[in-house]
Amino acid sequence: MKLKLFSVGKTKEAWLQAAIEEYQKRLQGDFEIKLFKDRYKLKEACDKEKRLVLLDPSGKVFTSEQFSEFLMKELELGGASLTFVIGDADGLPEGLEGAKVSLSKMTFTHQIARLVLVEQVFRAFEIEKGSKYHK
Amino acid sequence: MKLKLFSVGKTKEAWLQAAIEEYQKRLQGDFEIKLFKDRYKLKEACDKEKRLVLLDPSGKVFTSEQFSEFLMKELELGGASLTFVIGDADGLPEGLEGAKVSLSKMTFTHQIARLVLVEQVFRAFEIEKGSKYHK
Repeated sequence: MKLKLFSVGKTKEAWLQAAIEEYQKRLQGDFEIKLFKDRYKLKEACDKEKRLVLLDPSGKVFTSEQFSEFLMKELELGGASLTFVIGDADGLPEGLEGAKVSLSKMTFTHQIARLVLVEQVFRAFEIEKGSKYHK
Repeated sequence: MKLKLFSVGKTKEAWLQAAIEEYQKRLQGDFEIKLFKDRYKLKEACDKEKRLVLLDPSGKVFTSEQFSEFLMKELELGGASLTFVIGDADGLPEGLEGAKVSLSKMTFTHQIARLVLVEQVFRAFEIEKGSKYHK
């Protein structure tokens, strides 16, 4: 299985790096984050991916249980390969195809969106496993 | 103005502490977090507060703009004093009165909920000021 998150920018905040690494560790290296210089480089990289899930304010709002089901289905359809995309301040690059998902009706910083996403992905697998993490 | 966040537990993660402190600094000390030993101590402390806003999955879902309006109104009604409450794993203590707010349909860890809340409070004031932070 290979999950990726593609976005634009740098991880300036040390706390964010630490937080995200914590969940990446729990996901046993199956979640990779790549940050690109600008939306054009992001678009180029996305075009090479098998299956995309786009994070967008207009996207579908899920509960964590629904997101878990959605993720398992998407992974199946993507042949165990899935790439999440978070755009820049101007949103997603044009011309990308994939299911659209919204983490909240509220606007998050891209940094916080990355953290929320990686935790929800970890939670999705715990829900699937039926572990105590999500009760 | 005095904004507080009351919850249960400890901030074990250093990254979370750093993240929250960053936003507290930006809020110029107007946002205080107090963590209590258990839900009974939390309830006792809440009973002494002027006006509560309860974070609850069944609460109202706002956009950041709507949350900004809501916060300004609540601050007015609370005489510039407002206390947010996040419960423990079993939810909120019984018998608390206040508007109920939900940060997302998804379930967050209490740690991530604290971070999202403090960032949304900071964002709410930036929206009110019309700054470039929220565009």
